[in-house]
Amino acid sequence: MSRGAAGAITAPSLDFTDGGTGVSRDRLVVIGGDAGGMSAASQARRRRDADELEIIAIERGTHTSYSACGIPYWIAGDVDAADDLVARAPAVFRDKYAIDVHLRHEATAIDLDRREVTARDLDGHGERTFGFDQLMIATGAVPVRPKLPGIDRPGVYGVQTLDDGAAVQAAVRPDRTCAVVVGGGYIGLEMAEALVRRGLDVTLVEAADHLMSTMDPDLADQIADAVRNVGITVRLGESVTGIEGADHVRAVTTDAGVIPADLVVLGLGVRPNSALAKSAGIDCGPTGGIVTDRQQCTSHEGVWAAGDCVETFHRVSCRPVHIALGTHANKQGRVAGINIGGGYATFPGVIGTAITKICNLEIARTGLSSRECAAVGLSGVTISVESTTRAGYFPGAELMTTKIIAERGTGRLLGAQIVGREQSAKRIDVLATALWNGMTVEEMVGMDLSYAPPFSPVWDPVLIAARKAADAVAAAR
Amino acid sequence: MSRGAAGAITAPSLDFTDGGTGVSRDRLVVIGGDAGGMSAASQARRRRDADELEIIAIERGTHTSYSACGIPYWIAGDVDAADDLVARAPAVFRDKYAIDVHLRHEATAIDLDRREVTARDLDGHGERTFGFDQLMIATGAVPVRPKLPGIDRPGVYGVQTLDDGAAVQAAVRPDRTCAVVVGGGYIGLEMAEALVRRGLDVTLVEAADHLMSTMDPDLADQIADAVRNVGITVRLGESVTGIEGADHVRAVTTDAGVIPADLVVLGLGVRPNSALAKSAGIDCGPTGGIVTDRQQCTSHEGVWAAGDCVETFHRVSCRPVHIALGTHANKQGRVAGINIGGGYATFPGVIGTAITKICNLEIARTGLSSRECAAVGLSGVTISVESTTRAGYFPGAELMTTKIIAERGTGRLLGAQIVGREQSAKRIDVLATALWNGMTVEEMVGMDLSYAPPFSPVWDPVLIAARKAADAVAAAR
Repeated sequence: MSRGAAGAITAPSLDFTDGGTGVSRDRLVVIGGDAGGMSAASQARRRRDADELEIIAIERGTHTSYSACGIPYWIAGDVDAADDLVARAPAVFRDKYAIDVHLRHEATAIDLDRREVTARDLDGHGERTFGFDQLMIATGAVPVRPKLPGIDRPGVYGVQTLDDGAAVQAAVRPDRTCAVVVGGGYIGLEMAEALVRRGLDVTLVEAADHLMSTMDPDLADQIADAVRNVGITVRLGESVTGIEGADHVRAVTTDAGVIPADLVVLGLGVRPNSALAKSAGIDCGPTGGIVTDRQQCTSHEGVWAAGDCVETFHRVSCRPVHIALGTHANKQGRVAGINIGGGYATFPGVIGTAITKICNLEIARTGLSSRECAAVGLSGVTISVESTTRAGYFPGAELMTTKIIAERGTGRLLGAQIVGREQSAKRIDVLATALWNGMTVEEMVGMDLSYAPPFSPVWDPVLIAARKAADAVAAAR
Repeated sequence: MSRGAAGAITAPSLDFTDGGTGVSRDRLVVIGGDAGGMSAASQARRRRDADELEIIAIERGTHTSYSACGIPYWIAGDVDAADDLVARAPAVFRDKYAIDVHLRHEATAIDLDRREVTARDLDGHGERTFGFDQLMIATGAVPVRPKLPGIDRPGVYGVQTLDDGAAVQAAVRPDRTCAVVVGGGYIGLEMAEALVRRGLDVTLVEAADHLMSTMDPDLADQIADAVRNVGITVRLGESVTGIEGADHVRAVTTDAGVIPADLVVLGLGVRPNSALAKSAGIDCGPTGGIVTDRQQCTSHEGVWAAGDCVETFHRVSCRPVHIALGTHANKQGRVAGINIGGGYATFPGVIGTAITKICNLEIARTGLSSRECAAVGLSGVTISVESTTRAGYFPGAELMTTKIIAERGTGRLLGAQIVGREQSAKRIDVLATALWNGMTVEEMVGMDLSYAPPFSPVWDPVLIAARKAADAVAAAR
């Protein structure tokens, strides 16, 4: 099916032909030019060339396919320029993939009956309507922004898009000396570290009584120590009540006092940006994310979704979850694109694997935490072991803690967490792969993992933990 | 059952009592005081205390439970002293585990009818006989030492025991300027690097036309480049014909010439040290290793074996294999010890996982190589991918090559190899865990592995390789 670039065709069953070429084309419209949307677009293109499938992408911001996870490292100075975080620029999509990318266009409405998307040109050139045969929704997530007095004051930043990152980057100036980061999760901690490395006095405020709610409290304590050691003031169990200032932020008020702030970064997590889909009548789930089937198709045929705007299912809890991570967005986008392109692929769900580096600590998790086990009625036996990343005698051997939660009775691995120094946390992938395959900790003990002194003790930390967990499961029977 | 320390009791059915205490004890004799033997001894002790089980260990050398894999790092200077390589000294076994360790005693005969072991005191104090109820054979491996003219000349060293390591250490003196390493496998390469770091001119001679026969030739080429880059002369496809010299080695002769040598290190692999068991009538298999069942019991009841002296089974090839690695020895010893102690445990076999660091390269493998697949009649589809260890834009991102062999038709993972810079090779454990669980490469693509810019690109190298392999399997159908 063929349409002029700005034309709106209402009847998808009509078979238009492309300006005189005689070839019939479908049109795919992609809303959102980051991981989920552009993975889908590229995969669809690989299977159907431009003669068969016209692809139009609508992106609110000024970049495509960038690494939002890289923003804290750009702020910290580890990465030189925003462009370094861009995997594929709009010109690449246009030239190599024949994908017509419309930047600074915000989709404002989806009409499923007319099969068209309306988008507003953010540079003031009015509205356009794009008809579609297939629609890919990849609208991402929006930072949680509590309704606090002064929250919209200049100097308060979220960190979700590359444009957000640029705003923080511009805000770090010699006359700004103190920053408050609200929220002690991954992004909050990464941003706190980045800002302290840029020379600011940083206070991190967390309402819960430990950092990183995705980790168990005992491991979170190690993280708090590491964060304090680099000079970040950590205030736990303290709720922000407002943001003060006149034309610019001046302080953050909490239920325990006032913290001066020239700069406030919100790290309170994100929620699915699914409002557009929802108002079009597309089903959303209990997490607020768009519901899809295993092929990433939404409640409406020919309408697909992927990435931070969808909910997916957790293979351990068997519950729908919203986990905003580029790695899921890429995989889901690829699955959607293969299906849009006429192939067949499914997304197998997630198990909650995550990793980060905060100060000198590597931190990782997979499966369910103790709290998450309790929430779904799974009874776990929990062990922790301290071991070294290399053979104890080898230069550079560092300490690491591995925690395992195994199901009482069966010994099935339910979750694992690692906190340690260099070369510790990426071992979570071994635990994730074992968990993915439904292994018991007893079965894991015998696994043939690699050993040489520069890489691990003769019993790999994962195996030591599995062994101890197997003993604990047996003892609890 | 009780016996005096040096007494020989012939009838195991007789129930002696311990010198007046009235408690009956069994006796476990362990031949070999390294990983396999002492793991078994400690596990047995954990389940049966000294009142129930007397444990005697016989060790030919002067150390117990040491890391033979650490020897090259000790020679190189990364590790200060031999003692650093000792996990548990004899005194620890005596004092903490009540294990009576006889060092410098070489077991010379096993009499299964009389259930006794004869051992020679290597310090010239004659022979002793130890009766046993249970026998643990952990005699390890011996370096392959081809019958070449001059092979026994002073200055020619194997690297198998800590005492061997001490001999090489003593041989590295200012007046020794050139070394020849024979054999380009793990130990040969590690020793070549150690000696070049100690300032010697090192030539490595390998009869095959590529290094590291356990890796596929294309990856072995990368290794050869790295080895040559640190100044090691690599001579491939060249067979050693003899060792020249008078009272000390002076040169190594090959079918292509003469190489001056003040020092020769043999890195030609090892074979199971099973002669003692074999002459006692205990079954050995096609690899030369002692045959055991899944519980590590030999062909004779109450006689157990573990470690480098046994053969085990390969879960992918379904063939018996001899793989001399401390990690297997420890696991097998643990299994034997649990069973000796009255528990129940089995060893699940191996999949050929191995890792090392040579010069600036990390090298790892699991499963079968291309050659090994062919040898057992498995038809594989093979792919290689280059990727980065961290997000491409992240400081310290390094190149790595991941190779995957998947079964034609089914797509089942058969083997994988990694060669790359820092933080690449330990990823082999993810592939090993996937292979252990019989995953197909298509199934692997969806796995929830950890992602953050300091640890991997958004598509982890393992997933990129799996994806490419899945495409290749589909294309080959």
